[in-house]
Amino acid sequence: MGNIAACCRSFWCKPKNPDIRISLPAICFVWQIAMIILFGLFVRYDDESDAHWSEHKHKNNITSDIENDFYYRYPSFQDVHVMIFVGFGFLMTFLKRYSFGGVGFNFLIAAFGLQWALLMQGWFHSLDPNDGLIKIGIENIINADFCVAGCLIAYGALLGKVSPVQLMVLTLFGITLFAVEEYIILNVLHVRDAGGSMVIHTFGAYYGLTISWILYRPKLDHSKNLSGSVYHSDVFAMIGTLFLWMYWPSFNSAIADHGDGQHRAAINTYLALAASVLTTFAISSLSAKKGKLDMVHIQNATLAGGVAMGTAAEFMISPYGSLIVGFVCGIISTFGYLVITPFMEKYLKIQDTCGIHNLHAMPGVLGGVVGAITAATASESVYGHEGLVNTFDFEGNYAKRTPATQGGFQAAGLCVALAFGIVGGAIVGFILRLPCCWGDPSDENCFDDEVYWEVPEDEESIPPILEYSSHMVGKNTDMIENTIGYNTL
Amino acid sequence: MGNIAACCRSFWCKPKNPDIRISLPAICFVWQIAMIILFGLFVRYDDESDAHWSEHKHKNNITSDIENDFYYRYPSFQDVHVMIFVGFGFLMTFLKRYSFGGVGFNFLIAAFGLQWALLMQGWFHSLDPNDGLIKIGIENIINADFCVAGCLIAYGALLGKVSPVQLMVLTLFGITLFAVEEYIILNVLHVRDAGGSMVIHTFGAYYGLTISWILYRPKLDHSKNLSGSVYHSDVFAMIGTLFLWMYWPSFNSAIADHGDGQHRAAINTYLALAASVLTTFAISSLSAKKGKLDMVHIQNATLAGGVAMGTAAEFMISPYGSLIVGFVCGIISTFGYLVITPFMEKYLKIQDTCGIHNLHAMPGVLGGVVGAITAATASESVYGHEGLVNTFDFEGNYAKRTPATQGGFQAAGLCVALAFGIVGGAIVGFILRLPCCWGDPSDENCFDDEVYWEVPEDEESIPPILEYSSHMVGKNTDMIENTIGYNTL
Amino acid sequence: MGNIAACCRSFWCKPKNPDIRISLPAICFVWQIAMIILFGLFVRYDDESDAHWSEHKHKNNITSDIENDFYYRYPSFQDVHVMIFVGFGFLMTFLKRYSFGGVGFNFLIAAFGLQWALLMQGWFHSLDPNDGLIKIGIENIINADFCVAGCLIAYGALLGKVSPVQLMVLTLFGITLFAVEEYIILNVLHVRDAGGSMVIHTFGAYYGLTISWILYRPKLDHSKNLSGSVYHSDVFAMIGTLFLWMYWPSFNSAIADHGDGQHRAAINTYLALAASVLTTFAISSLSAKKGKLDMVHIQNATLAGGVAMGTAAEFMISPYGSLIVGFVCGIISTFGYLVITPFMEKYLKIQDTCGIHNLHAMPGVLGGVVGAITAATASESVYGHEGLVNTFDFEGNYAKRTPATQGGFQAAGLCVALAFGIVGGAIVGFILRLPCCWGDPSDENCFDDEVYWEVPEDEESIPPILEYSSHMVGKNTDMIENTIGYNTL
Repeated sequence: MGNIAACCRSFWCKPKNPDIRISLPAICFVWQIAMIILFGLFVRYDDESDAHWSEHKHKNNITSDIENDFYYRYPSFQDVHVMIFVGFGFLMTFLKRYSFGGVGFNFLIAAFGLQWALLMQGWFHSLDPNDGLIKIGIENIINADFCVAGCLIAYGALLGKVSPVQLMVLTLFGITLFAVEEYIILNVLHVRDAGGSMVIHTFGAYYGLTISWILYRPKLDHSKNLSGSVYHSDVFAMIGTLFLWMYWPSFNSAIADHGDGQHRAAINTYLALAASVLTTFAISSLSAKKGKLDMVHIQNATLAGGVAMGTAAEFMISPYGSLIVGFVCGIISTFGYLVITPFMEKYLKIQDTCGIHNLHAMPGVLGGVVGAITAATASESVYGHEGLVNTFDFEGNYAKRTPATQGGFQAAGLCVALAFGIVGGAIVGFILRLPCCWGDPSDENCFDDEVYWEVPEDEESIPPILEYSSHMVGKNTDMIENTIGYNTL
Repeated sequence: MGNIAACCRSFWCKPKNPDIRISLPAICFVWQIAMIILFGLFVRYDDESDAHWSEHKHKNNITSDIENDFYYRYPSFQDVHVMIFVGFGFLMTFLKRYSFGGVGFNFLIAAFGLQWALLMQGWFHSLDPNDGLIKIGIENIINADFCVAGCLIAYGALLGKVSPVQLMVLTLFGITLFAVEEYIILNVLHVRDAGGSMVIHTFGAYYGLTISWILYRPKLDHSKNLSGSVYHSDVFAMIGTLFLWMYWPSFNSAIADHGDGQHRAAINTYLALAASVLTTFAISSLSAKKGKLDMVHIQNATLAGGVAMGTAAEFMISPYGSLIVGFVCGIISTFGYLVITPFMEKYLKIQDTCGIHNLHAMPGVLGGVVGAITAATASESVYGHEGLVNTFDFEGNYAKRTPATQGGFQAAGLCVALAFGIVGGAIVGFILRLPCCWGDPSDENCFDDEVYWEVPEDEESIPPILEYSSHMVGKNTDMIENTIGYNTL
Repeated sequence: MGNIAACCRSFWCKPKNPDIRISLPAICFVWQIAMIILFGLFVRYDDESDAHWSEHKHKNNITSDIENDFYYRYPSFQDVHVMIFVGFGFLMTFLKRYSFGGVGFNFLIAAFGLQWALLMQGWFHSLDPNDGLIKIGIENIINADFCVAGCLIAYGALLGKVSPVQLMVLTLFGITLFAVEEYIILNVLHVRDAGGSMVIHTFGAYYGLTISWILYRPKLDHSKNLSGSVYHSDVFAMIGTLFLWMYWPSFNSAIADHGDGQHRAAINTYLALAASVLTTFAISSLSAKKGKLDMVHIQNATLAGGVAMGTAAEFMISPYGSLIVGFVCGIISTFGYLVITPFMEKYLKIQDTCGIHNLHAMPGVLGGVVGAITAATASESVYGHEGLVNTFDFEGNYAKRTPATQGGFQAAGLCVALAFGIVGGAIVGFILRLPCCWGDPSDENCFDDEVYWEVPEDEESIPPILEYSSHMVGKNTDMIENTIGYNTL
């Protein structure tokens, strides 16, 4: 019996070996080659990016190149692209010695994820029935970036505690789950979720939190000295925060309907975000001695309004409605950092490095609820007949759906997102815990770039002068010169 | 008599208490709730962002969604948005220990200011006479960002010396004054100022300088050790500089006329900025021993060309005219940092932390003058009849205005901006000096994030080793180990 | 004989004097004034940025302002602008003590270069035959930014080893050579190169490498202690990397054909870049002990896919073709950093600070080859008749050119770019070696901002305590207090 226990322990708790020299290159090469083959078999340009565009124009009576979807969406795409790589990347540089890992692994998994997302989403949404090929254009690459965002949110919970190999696996499964979940929510249930409160944020957050729960590290406080920030790493993180904050109106409007849809989504998001900032500063100041503000709150909770407007941004929620959503979310999210994150870590055994529960999970769920209510209360008097049909796509099979029914389906969509996040996270978490050459760090080496990166010696780092210490007095001069030597580099 | 003096002193010069735990949350909550109520009463979507857009299209024979103003202005809006939050924010991170305050308080007051600006500007410019409601669209949110810029410029003069509570008050009044001033200049005087040389820069700079004059701190040199930069804070500030510099063409063209107006404004600003860079480098190098360049000049004076093109950018100033404006402004602005800022501090008792007099006040006034001259000399031979009418809006009541008259009105507009800045600044400065729970720092604690922020301990910070110093010789070993301890984190 | 040798040596090897107080201001002023005069003589607005646009619209039956080229290209222009100033600028901040020089001199020479480029390119491409004037619009300023990119690439090889005066000269000649080379390639040979694999990257890289070869510094290892990075300088460099990476689709599509051309170029570049990231991480990890990643690779080689898609991005290379290009380039480029750069430095005497041979030269040449092959294999079945004509501009004099011939000309274009880079670089390198008041640093002072910048004293820097060292024992207390003094600022 003791033997079995010991055997189990030795099976599940092998000493960690963070050497990824074989596993990371192998996974990168194999998956990239797989992408090339699959793209070769399945992916082509769509009507608007193919050289046959000029013929397509004639056929469809399009008078001008400016009608190409590229010109409707490219500026928003680039803003979203910045959010994915600089926004998420730099938001995760706040740790004092994990900035390389924060921005670097974010880069790696996003670059892989968007390729796999183009395929997965393509099979579900952009398959040409004539030839069985996926036809891609600007909207597909925006959606691929969105899909990746779900996995980057999950990374936020695991920051500093997993290996890049694990992250690649997390991303492969995450994208797959995302595409299925998105298909069920958007196509089967015919739910509207342009900015992804449910599809992206709720799913991504619960996916990451569940994985973090399964990968719980009881001795994580051994890495305590590296789990905080330093002055300049906090300023770096503000780059991420601000680019996310500024470009969020583009995130929520990027794939909204042409014309008033995109226009309204941008305005609503702009307002909700502004309100979040004020309540975040208020709660942060209220909660500390002498009213001192906490950078963690400013870096994160100010963004909650954008998350929560993901579903309702394109609806006629009205400007003051957006402000209310932002107002509430700033409070909830900051409160989460103050109370819920420590509670979850202590009692639920969920270690959430970036606090994604406060920034994505709660505001995401709230956003889904707000969307359901706003949809349920939509009326022709507010939208106009044509506006209502356009906004909710009450066409074809759905021509007879009423706003009230739509509200119900919206709520159902939220449940689907939650279920996929939790169940999917449990499965992937279990896989990532299998004893295998994952290369994850030991509890003592979490939050440390030294594990996976060649870290440059800092000018402030001390050259080996321990040897002087035993016969110090007579060597003072040497020590001082040495000190000067490295400081005046 | 002495009693009264003492009483006065005790009234005006109470010891500072920078605790903002009650005042900051209170002001944030009260004002945000006020915004929600006022938005609820007054603010709705305009024709292009409302769900009735499709009906509006039919009614006005608009054939395509791409004609929605969103597609004309959204890319420029996002660039302006980046300038407000990353540009101004990071430009103010240059101080060694006030980066949190620079970027953080900039974030706070901009997020509040844009809401209040939507209301104030809305009442003046976007009121629907049918229902008394403000109708907002993309142009309103660009203008709100512009309005906020005026207050952020003022913050530049006060950086490190005021509390966030004072900044909120400064912003509330600043936006109010701005909206009135803007209404008088643009609507009453019918002046053109697309990029805001007068309306934004001149007003904002004199508003801030006057406040700084009234809040003069005679013992500010007690904070001298924190009033400079460190190597990496200067690099952070360059992020702000470059995003301002790169996106300034969008700033000056964002609300210019569709078509040639936006196109020309972008080109002119692009050229003026390029010329500023060369003369800034030249004067900076010329003024120092061995020609060493000063980062303060590069961070700021390179932008002067953009400020000075704010009025004339959409006029036919011609490419070489833009270069001349940039050339002159780079010289004046750098010269300002070398001579005028120290002079103002010593003799006029105006402490101008970021040197906004050099970057915004002088180039802003110059921009107003350039605009007046360019307008006065405009002619049908250069603009074409239709072009002249479009560019200067010589329509309706103003159909008979000549370019010469327009030039005169432009000059009058400059005077209005100056007057509002100085008088408004005097009033607000006086308010901010009233003995009250402003929470501003004492002279010893200026430029220090410790006052309002939870600042992380730096890895370089020294653990308490003072205790060793009295019996040092025998403890050398400890000290060294200690040193190694904190350096090799 | 010995006399002549000594004389020669004293002529060629004068002691370095990096004082630029006269030369830098002189060159800035003279050249900026020259620009103003030349712009006054030659440069005017084009039809779309001139106030006569409304008349132009009527004449050409243009129904809407949105047809102004500004709206097709301005968003891409701004992205390119960010790449030039933040992308290239911050990519060069990676050195521990040359961040000011990296981002600052990049700023200076780009701001000068774009003016000269507007003239040089204008004479070749935008001359109005009616009046002999250059007419500029949005496409001209994009092209000016492109032209500047060539010189900034060259700067990458020389980073830290040349003076700003030398850089200005390098830029003047570089822009001139670029414009001639571009004219020959694009107009005489009628080659397509929208993203500039050949015109920009190949030319720029070989231009810089040849100059670096001629300016070889045998004793550069005297500056070895400054030739690396520190932790935070590597994070700064990631800002540059990411903005280059994210906006590269705009770079390659900015001047592509309206409609499908721009659309396809963006998608292809997006895919190639994603593939580069994966192979870069793979090779970087594979090459190091324990699989530790090297920031130099991540900062640079991830971009190789964008360089290599410069020519073929607007062709029907198909999505999987783009992935293959990115896949190969990531490998080649990382391999270059591991093997070729050290080899070149040791055996070919080419010191390449930023490794532009790996990031621009090799991928640029590869991009030219890929472009030639893709063009040669183009067919009407893939492009459609109209699409083929549009994509390759088989109109006018070139109406009868076949894809196969076009492929040959593409290859010829690559040779022209190479020849201009190497021969031009040799000439300019020789000029920059002439004994003259260039102000370049001595071998001991390379990579050091102290030479050209007023560098702020860091809080970590040590105050002069050498004086204590000779009578140390009794002064320990002072030293420690001193230490505390500067550390607890």
